[in-house]
Amino acid sequence: MSIDFIDDSPGLTDVPGFRVGAAACDIRGKANGRLDLALVVADRPCAAAGVFTTNDVKAAPVRLCQRLLAAGGAVRGVVGNSGNANACTSAQGDADAAETARLAGEAVRSAGEVFLVCSTGRIGELLPMDRMKSGVAEAAARLTRDPAEGRRAAEAILTSDTRPKTCTARFTHGGRTVTVSGIAKGAGMIEPNMATMLAFVCTDAEASAPFLKDALKAAADDSFNCVSVDGDMSTNDTVLLLASGASGVRVGPDGEPAATALFREALGRVCFALAEKIVGDGEKITKVVAVQVSGARSRADAEKIARAVGNSLLVKSSWFGEDPNWGRLADAAGYARTGLDESRLDIHYGDVPAVLGGRPLPENKPRWKEVVKAARFTVRISLGLGDGRFRLLASDLTDGYVNYNKSE
Amino acid sequence: MSIDFIDDSPGLTDVPGFRVGAAACDIRGKANGRLDLALVVADRPCAAAGVFTTNDVKAAPVRLCQRLLAAGGAVRGVVGNSGNANACTSAQGDADAAETARLAGEAVRSAGEVFLVCSTGRIGELLPMDRMKSGVAEAAARLTRDPAEGRRAAEAILTSDTRPKTCTARFTHGGRTVTVSGIAKGAGMIEPNMATMLAFVCTDAEASAPFLKDALKAAADDSFNCVSVDGDMSTNDTVLLLASGASGVRVGPDGEPAATALFREALGRVCFALAEKIVGDGEKITKVVAVQVSGARSRADAEKIARAVGNSLLVKSSWFGEDPNWGRLADAAGYARTGLDESRLDIHYGDVPAVLGGRPLPENKPRWKEVVKAARFTVRISLGLGDGRFRLLASDLTDGYVNYNKSE
Repeated sequence: MSIDFIDDSPGLTDVPGFRVGAAACDIRGKANGRLDLALVVADRPCAAAGVFTTNDVKAAPVRLCQRLLAAGGAVRGVVGNSGNANACTSAQGDADAAETARLAGEAVRSAGEVFLVCSTGRIGELLPMDRMKSGVAEAAARLTRDPAEGRRAAEAILTSDTRPKTCTARFTHGGRTVTVSGIAKGAGMIEPNMATMLAFVCTDAEASAPFLKDALKAAADDSFNCVSVDGDMSTNDTVLLLASGASGVRVGPDGEPAATALFREALGRVCFALAEKIVGDGEKITKVVAVQVSGARSRADAEKIARAVGNSLLVKSSWFGEDPNWGRLADAAGYARTGLDESRLDIHYGDVPAVLGGRPLPENKPRWKEVVKAARFTVRISLGLGDGRFRLLASDLTDGYVNYNKSE
Repeated sequence: MSIDFIDDSPGLTDVPGFRVGAAACDIRGKANGRLDLALVVADRPCAAAGVFTTNDVKAAPVRLCQRLLAAGGAVRGVVGNSGNANACTSAQGDADAAETARLAGEAVRSAGEVFLVCSTGRIGELLPMDRMKSGVAEAAARLTRDPAEGRRAAEAILTSDTRPKTCTARFTHGGRTVTVSGIAKGAGMIEPNMATMLAFVCTDAEASAPFLKDALKAAADDSFNCVSVDGDMSTNDTVLLLASGASGVRVGPDGEPAATALFREALGRVCFALAEKIVGDGEKITKVVAVQVSGARSRADAEKIARAVGNSLLVKSSWFGEDPNWGRLADAAGYARTGLDESRLDIHYGDVPAVLGGRPLPENKPRWKEVVKAARFTVRISLGLGDGRFRLLASDLTDGYVNYNKSE
């Protein structure tokens, strides 16, 4: 048995037990007809879990989701909007997030059931609740399993992304098919422990909320938490997982072990693919670079070094310029201050050694210059001190990024 | 009694007991006649102290200086070069740094005396020792207290800086004048605990090495360690302080208390002025922004927040665009994860409040938009949680920076 993976799938409409609707309700106030609200509704209340930003400043919808999920009840659906993050909006923001959830329940005639809310966009401005209300109504009226609507929903949550991010994984167990599908948005502010990124993952597996939480946490740690565009972590990062149970296949400690393993694998594949799409579509980037650190005393040390390298402005600028300046890698690895021993340091571009045992190999420069010309390449930093390893997917830094983010 | 401060002074030739020489010895191999080596020589061996990068990867000259100063002996002079950092150069780098020191001793006919060495420039390439040798000889032949040569020395240590950085402070005590003068180079890679920055400070005060170390550490903590251009910390950061004693005024625990206080103040003024010049001349920057955090539970928390804000790509890009996006400030303050309470958060641009008690004040936007148009402004972040405060001098991030650092 294995996983069937569909890249750039229609997204959440792939999953039995869920319907999806999208709307253009002009949250940005630009009257440009852009899709900006997605509604995902389960046929009946289902188990759910979430992983959230660890920023001290959490947007109102993050606080709402955390509170609702902590209460442990079943969840009927999710409202996601782009264009306004409902962050730093004080008590009114909390009221608006709760009102959005209430509007969703009302629109699908299930008042009193739990709806989660996610927002992304500009910080510090109140949600235009009149437009949110019409958007929720419009999306509710369109609820369907039509793949075209799934694609519209994936588009509605985007901000500065250049393309929708979707994928689906399927496996069969005992003659039944289990589907895991996700949509995401990313772009700027992508870093430690996720950053303005949203991902909604739905499955028709049957599972308890605690198991979903455990599985989602593990999948996020190996995916969304291993990418970095600019080192900024947002106030709104959220990954949600809803399980309709429509497949009839139970996973988790009280389910089938084989199906459970396949489910974790499918969830991991979906999250990793979405995370890769997020870094690959970072704002105005031209390169995706895997920073692979090994031989550290611990995974935590390896992660510190990978993040120091992957977030160094000098390193990222040199990747943009296709200048394989390994000195900047060594410098950044050193200022992570893990107790690196320069005389044991190896640095490779792809498979080409640039430094071995702390000694530069300038004669290899023509070969490593070739490596960094690719749109995707790997930088390997080996410390020779232990077994700790970490892989970070990072991007370059471009003049386009700066100009794009000069004003919002 | 007070401090007489001279900005953009000739630099080290201001200080009795020291002579200075500069040379153009083509360390960069570009045959462009650029000054690239400075030699500072005390009339007789004198007390000295240093503060160095805390990067795990330390350049050979840093290791040499640390070893020589730890031995506690008197120092006769300093050789500084630009164009090559002698970092990541293995055992040959150590040998080359030691040979540079030896050449300096030989050139000024004081073989066997201690010379310190500082290098800045490209990482991972061996020093061109033949050219270093002729440079040291040329600089030694020019040793003088002529102010013009002081200015040449300040120029010789520059890399991507656009202008020399010098200043001098003087005070009188008991009818005698004490001078403290410094030169520095900065530009890219300026961050925590200094970063490719070099500063040489000379004084004619008389003091013990341990006192100089203590005074220099305090001055550096309030100056070089409070500036950030790009968050990168280099392998070569060094601040050196040499005291000739020529003034006959003894400072320190075994000196005059009043003179000691004035000396600390003068040293602090010199270091702070040099640090300000460094951030003001950051690579392709257009703004210097003071990030002033107060009301934190501790100074360490305040520093974490100031650095998160001052190093955020999104924040720095918005400063470049003169877009007073306080949401990005709040976001960065939050991901410093000090346990910030959003409902107590105040944010001001200059004296104009943008957020009070977590509540945005959009009506003030026209006023705070004016504040960020200035080339220098202050962002105040107040947490309402305690007495901890920290001020970081940061810069904006420009497309020019990225393009400048694409290749080296």
